[in-house]
Amino acid sequence: MTRKERPKVTLLAGGVGAARLLRGLVSLVDPDHLTVVVNTGDDEDFYGLHVSPDLDTIVYTLAGLAPRDRGWGVRGDSRRVLDALERFYGPAWFALGDRDLATHVFRTDRLRSGATLSECTREICAALDVLVRVLPATDDRLRTLLDTDEGTLAFQTYLVKRRGRPAVRAVRYDGSEASRPAPGVIEAIATADVVIIAPSNPFVSIGPILAVPGVRAALAHVRAKTVAVSPLIGGSAVKGPLAAMLASMGHGADVGAIARIYRGLASVLLVAPGDGAVSLAGEDPRLVEHDILLDTAATARRVSRFVLSLAAGRADGHAQRRA
Amino acid sequence: MTRKERPKVTLLAGGVGAARLLRGLVSLVDPDHLTVVVNTGDDEDFYGLHVSPDLDTIVYTLAGLAPRDRGWGVRGDSRRVLDALERFYGPAWFALGDRDLATHVFRTDRLRSGATLSECTREICAALDVLVRVLPATDDRLRTLLDTDEGTLAFQTYLVKRRGRPAVRAVRYDGSEASRPAPGVIEAIATADVVIIAPSNPFVSIGPILAVPGVRAALAHVRAKTVAVSPLIGGSAVKGPLAAMLASMGHGADVGAIARIYRGLASVLLVAPGDGAVSLAGEDPRLVEHDILLDTAATARRVSRFVLSLAAGRADGHAQRRA
Repeated sequence: MTRKERPKVTLLAGGVGAARLLRGLVSLVDPDHLTVVVNTGDDEDFYGLHVSPDLDTIVYTLAGLAPRDRGWGVRGDSRRVLDALERFYGPAWFALGDRDLATHVFRTDRLRSGATLSECTREICAALDVLVRVLPATDDRLRTLLDTDEGTLAFQTYLVKRRGRPAVRAVRYDGSEASRPAPGVIEAIATADVVIIAPSNPFVSIGPILAVPGVRAALAHVRAKTVAVSPLIGGSAVKGPLAAMLASMGHGADVGAIARIYRGLASVLLVAPGDGAVSLAGEDPRLVEHDILLDTAATARRVSRFVLSLAAGRADGHAQRRA
Repeated sequence: MTRKERPKVTLLAGGVGAARLLRGLVSLVDPDHLTVVVNTGDDEDFYGLHVSPDLDTIVYTLAGLAPRDRGWGVRGDSRRVLDALERFYGPAWFALGDRDLATHVFRTDRLRSGATLSECTREICAALDVLVRVLPATDDRLRTLLDTDEGTLAFQTYLVKRRGRPAVRAVRYDGSEASRPAPGVIEAIATADVVIIAPSNPFVSIGPILAVPGVRAALAHVRAKTVAVSPLIGGSAVKGPLAAMLASMGHGADVGAIARIYRGLASVLLVAPGDGAVSLAGEDPRLVEHDILLDTAATARRVSRFVLSLAAGRADGHAQRRA
């Protein structure tokens, strides 16, 4: 028996980490009460096709199409087209499966016809029977650029092509100043009963969302009902280059760095057991320990339930653990 | 042992019929002496991708990728992407295989980057190890439009979606007035030792090539060395809607209609045995009978050899038959 909560929930999401939490959230929240605001800073053009890695990861997860063993693409997908594309372009460094590619073909076609990314995303969700509302953070062009020891790199180039090896010195959000929140984003934050910042990389997943003018202010306004989930466990990122980025950008590799990034935006930062022993000025945000490893749907559900209870004021904070 | 002829040959080509003749021609002509000028009037946008059906049929044939049992696409191709696209667009009426789709993705990407269709085609040929020179008739937008009982239809819509059923009253080449021959087209006609008009539909395959300003004059100038191969055998088209179009457009359904279309452009029209008993004013073009059914590579080779010998003045005309 699934107990459905009635709160309206808005999740700020990158890709993999957010998708893992989402597996739990969807079992607790009615789809028409759940909005996912997704990073678009990683969007990239491959072969002339507009690829939105984080939107796709979220949508495929919600559609039940995501693989269990990796955070991108469609489960069991083939790569017939990619193999053929390699004859024209040479070896591919970014894997695009056939079913996945259809999404990019559709999105590109619709964008070229004048549709917004929001509209494309809504249409893709409808076609894939996704009932949860998925919103890109912005319909405008915003690109995460990393200043690294090897020059300025787009995020996917850094992460996939260069395997996250170059040392990142700074992160920029190209186009952010002129960007506007996509329709519904500010309202979804303002009217939610609970806002959750997913355990995604704060620089390259959540950062681009916060860089859209208006989003940070909207979050600050609802800070009391906002819970962030740490992407670090014991100083390591569960997945991705976060720990290395924190180090190369001069941050400490503990949750204190995460807490400082979300200061003023979240009232609680949920951290792994033992990670809460960091002194923070004014408890902003308050650190709450809980098992946050999202390795199965069951753990994702437990974490999600705890987050919802925290935001509803039903959890009492420090060192609470529910194995 | 293949006897390679040294003449420079230029073939004006549509899709299927031309591809069948080409299977023979390539065994007789050095690839660097063979130029195929291809119809682009059927080019169509599917899912935002630029599809060039006749160019693809020719290139896949030359690349050894064409299926034996049909005149389009890649042999043994899958349709993973198309199946996935149907979730977004609904049922597909134009089959696009996965490997085939990669060609369209590449072409679309290159066109959007500012490349010409000629440049795309050259790059596709290079990637697929095609040595024969394949030229689109024009790099400009030229579209074959059919005025039918069901309104004006693009050619693929008429042929594939409507299965060639609407009665065609007239054929137009939208954009032809402003079009220019692609680089090399006029020169390929002017400098060839033999020009062959493939057994393709004169209205929708050869017509769009002739509609490009300059092509008709270039052909007329080399009329003496130009041989057309009839697409009709015994009053029927081997493949496609030609016979129905001839009837609905008020032409007779015999090779006389074909001869009148190519009057002034070809000195010989090669027709099937028994089809030459048509009275033509001034023998323009001269009708020469020969087996022209291109059902195997061997027959394609025999027909090709005969065409080359005709143009070289080594065949003596009427009713010559080489089974």
